[in-house]
Amino acid sequence: MALSAADIKSIKSLQQKKFRREQGLFVAEGTKTVSALLSSNLTVEHVYTTEPLEVGNSSIILETVKAKELERISSLTSANSVLAIAKIPVEKPINHSNSMVLVLDGIRDPGNLGTIIRTAKWFGVEDIICSKDCVDAYSPKVVQSTMGGLFHVNLNYTKLDEVIPQLKSNGYNLVGATMNGSSIYHTKKRGKTALVIGSESHGISDAVQELCDELVTIPNLEKTQKIESLNAAIATSVLLSELTR
Amino acid sequence: MALSAADIKSIKSLQQKKFRREQGLFVAEGTKTVSALLSSNLTVEHVYTTEPLEVGNSSIILETVKAKELERISSLTSANSVLAIAKIPVEKPINHSNSMVLVLDGIRDPGNLGTIIRTAKWFGVEDIICSKDCVDAYSPKVVQSTMGGLFHVNLNYTKLDEVIPQLKSNGYNLVGATMNGSSIYHTKKRGKTALVIGSESHGISDAVQELCDELVTIPNLEKTQKIESLNAAIATSVLLSELTR
Repeated sequence: MALSAADIKSIKSLQQKKFRREQGLFVAEGTKTVSALLSSNLTVEHVYTTEPLEVGNSSIILETVKAKELERISSLTSANSVLAIAKIPVEKPINHSNSMVLVLDGIRDPGNLGTIIRTAKWFGVEDIICSKDCVDAYSPKVVQSTMGGLFHVNLNYTKLDEVIPQLKSNGYNLVGATMNGSSIYHTKKRGKTALVIGSESHGISDAVQELCDELVTIPNLEKTQKIESLNAAIATSVLLSELTR
Repeated sequence: MALSAADIKSIKSLQQKKFRREQGLFVAEGTKTVSALLSSNLTVEHVYTTEPLEVGNSSIILETVKAKELERISSLTSANSVLAIAKIPVEKPINHSNSMVLVLDGIRDPGNLGTIIRTAKWFGVEDIICSKDCVDAYSPKVVQSTMGGLFHVNLNYTKLDEVIPQLKSNGYNLVGATMNGSSIYHTKKRGKTALVIGSESHGISDAVQELCDELVTIPNLEKTQKIESLNAAIATSVLLSELTR
């Protein structure tokens, strides 16, 4: 079955946040990512593939396309063999019985957000709260770099100054990652924790920092202090490791 | 001063490993990276800049160029204001009095290697040993993503089966990162440690794994085990944090 110009235009429009949010749809590409998507609870609408594929669900429209057609709808520079369109899941309320929630304040880099989602899932995090100015998690680059983690996490894009008081009233200790807090290795029983990670260039915004119960830092062991900072995804992973160990 | 066609060709050739190694030179771009380079001990030969700049060393040839000229010699997609050419430093012997050495077995992704170098420096690592099939650390993408860390670390590209016995005879405990080792959180006094990180797709090679004294893993806390692995740079950072805390 050949793709019409309208099909191609419609699929490519999902590379833009505006159209993703209007239509409630996003694109996943590549055999590994699409296979993770198909084994998740998300609703998959279309699968475009250049090779025979078993999708295991009769409600999914499966279309075999030519490699050249797939290239035309892909957002990747190197061709792939499969592309799927799925529904952006509804944001669910935070599960306040979980011991760890991740709060992201202004993460702008798609690769960082994707890696943070992948890593957070590894450390058992189920709820991730994003400020409205975080990059959209359903953009192609984020989807790719979560390595399937995106399909198993509950994301909420919301105003942090509204959600943080709710977390506090539900017993969470707000721990903010900064450059000048107390060492994360000074162990202390923390109970339920909401870890707040700030933007790559500016860190946690002042308003949010004031809402934190505790500010922590990963000590710099480099004698000459030539390295100014850690990458945001790296800092998140070290802090999650330490807070969940 | 206008750049000649020969200048441009010569500078652009440094985007390829072959010419970098032949000439013993590499390129650093961007104000932050070049400023880190100028404050390091590395020998800088040329600085091409579109804006007035103080290099603080009379042996460096400083050339003011037009933005369009800089674009022609740049490896970046978006224009920058400064590009420097420096000597690749000589590989120094490993300092065996340091408590931590990092060993990389087949890291292929430039962004991963750059982030690993940046993070290793943060945790005080001074010597990084790379297998011959690791990506070249002086390639533009690695230089960029180390955020200056590259200029303050001693890198050795060598055969791991030759260097590991030397590490052992100098009292290092070889700790390999795998998917099925013992939990990294089971604390144990380790003494001098050489942490071995394997390639993104295949992990540590069999021959190197056999030389390890201990295999460790970052436990997967995700209940349904939907996430298969951590990114190589993320795993390195969590392990370094745990081994140096």
